[in-house]
Amino acid sequence: MRKLYAIGIGAGDPEHLTVQAIDRLNRVDVFFVLDKGAEKSDLVRLRQEILDRYVTRPYRVVLVADPPRDRTPDDYRAAVADWHAARAAVYEQFLRSELSPDSAGAFLVWGDPSLYDSTIALIEAVLARGNVEFEYEVIPGISSISALVARHRTTMNQIGRSVQLTTGRRLASGWPSDVDDVFVLLDAHTTFDRFTAEGLHIYWGAYVGTRDEILLSGPLTPALAAQIRTVRAEARERHGWIMDAYLLRRPAA
Amino acid sequence: MRKLYAIGIGAGDPEHLTVQAIDRLNRVDVFFVLDKGAEKSDLVRLRQEILDRYVTRPYRVVLVADPPRDRTPDDYRAAVADWHAARAAVYEQFLRSELSPDSAGAFLVWGDPSLYDSTIALIEAVLARGNVEFEYEVIPGISSISALVARHRTTMNQIGRSVQLTTGRRLASGWPSDVDDVFVLLDAHTTFDRFTAEGLHIYWGAYVGTRDEILLSGPLTPALAAQIRTVRAEARERHGWIMDAYLLRRPAA
Repeated sequence: MRKLYAIGIGAGDPEHLTVQAIDRLNRVDVFFVLDKGAEKSDLVRLRQEILDRYVTRPYRVVLVADPPRDRTPDDYRAAVADWHAARAAVYEQFLRSELSPDSAGAFLVWGDPSLYDSTIALIEAVLARGNVEFEYEVIPGISSISALVARHRTTMNQIGRSVQLTTGRRLASGWPSDVDDVFVLLDAHTTFDRFTAEGLHIYWGAYVGTRDEILLSGPLTPALAAQIRTVRAEARERHGWIMDAYLLRRPAA
Repeated sequence: MRKLYAIGIGAGDPEHLTVQAIDRLNRVDVFFVLDKGAEKSDLVRLRQEILDRYVTRPYRVVLVADPPRDRTPDDYRAAVADWHAARAAVYEQFLRSELSPDSAGAFLVWGDPSLYDSTIALIEAVLARGNVEFEYEVIPGISSISALVARHRTTMNQIGRSVQLTTGRRLASGWPSDVDDVFVLLDAHTTFDRFTAEGLHIYWGAYVGTRDEILLSGPLTPALAAQIRTVRAEARERHGWIMDAYLLRRPAA
């Protein structure tokens, strides 16, 4: 039986790898890597550093071109679902052609495979098509939000309170009910800008855990929001891409 | 300058340790361990296994008796704050007496130090008292929720949706607004019982990542709720303690 692993490799610091992840890396014959084009070449290099550092047996890396994706859809969920279906067809073909029976393949996933990542859904979609059989295992990783708050030396939750994890898109429709702490991921539009008059505290980070890490935090005033916007735009220009996240905190009374 | 580390050691599987955590373990002279009494001796043993396996230099372990805590307070936040103040005084004394200048101490934290854990608040409270100086660093760990969903091979979020992390106490006051996926921690009262008629799916786990791991999942019917209640009570009786968590999912339309 073919075996597949979805391995969380942490938020950017190669030392985020767990002992379990390193063990599984060393059972893999073929690593499947999404080729997202030149703009993410820093991430491809980081991934290769992880393989060079931790894998002590022969392996192959297979680049898989990601199907095109509608980035400005009217219906976000439907567009993502269409894209997942196209990816499933592509990956099924690669699993059949590149992974011989009784060999093992892996997807390396930044952060934790469970958090705003499509790898598990992709694997389930390939299984559901019923054309290729395999077993699979998910290896948890240090998530981008764990890495962010660790670097800021703060907690996700306030004592006994709830925490929400959400997207920039959803935050744009308003502050969530009944929570004081909101992690915002996948936000290309600096949506925190809309919340500078509400007594919030922001913990922002980009490239967390890497040598390019930038951290900014403090009371979310218009001045700090503008500073983060500027720093973010400059960093994005300099690197050609950015991976950032933030926690918005309404201090409990 | 004294140095302190709050090190996330993962959710119970010694292989959850990260390379970064193992590096920091090997810089530590004194590990401070909360002595919570015999009922948690399994956890003390697991922690010792981690030290035996990964630490290659001499170290001391100092057991610190936890101050008593009001488990049934009228005002939950005030009671926790009082307890934190008492702990801060105890720990300040231990840091002064057990940690010589230029040496390093550490707290080993199950899961991730940022998620429903009081270590960071404790360290900040000791610093705020102003009687002992030290630098400190937080090392993120595999959280109980990452470990739970990895074992269930599911994701925290549905595509583009929000996720809430909350406590059993808060869930008891009703389903949170605007979310379809709710992680429930610190729930001694199987609060999921109240939600068996709402078309939810539950992913439940206890002792996740350990040899005693129990996983149950499925549509949250009264029958499954009763099964989890029974399994949970028997396991708690058998072990003398339990550490469990669950995800309640309302499948998106």
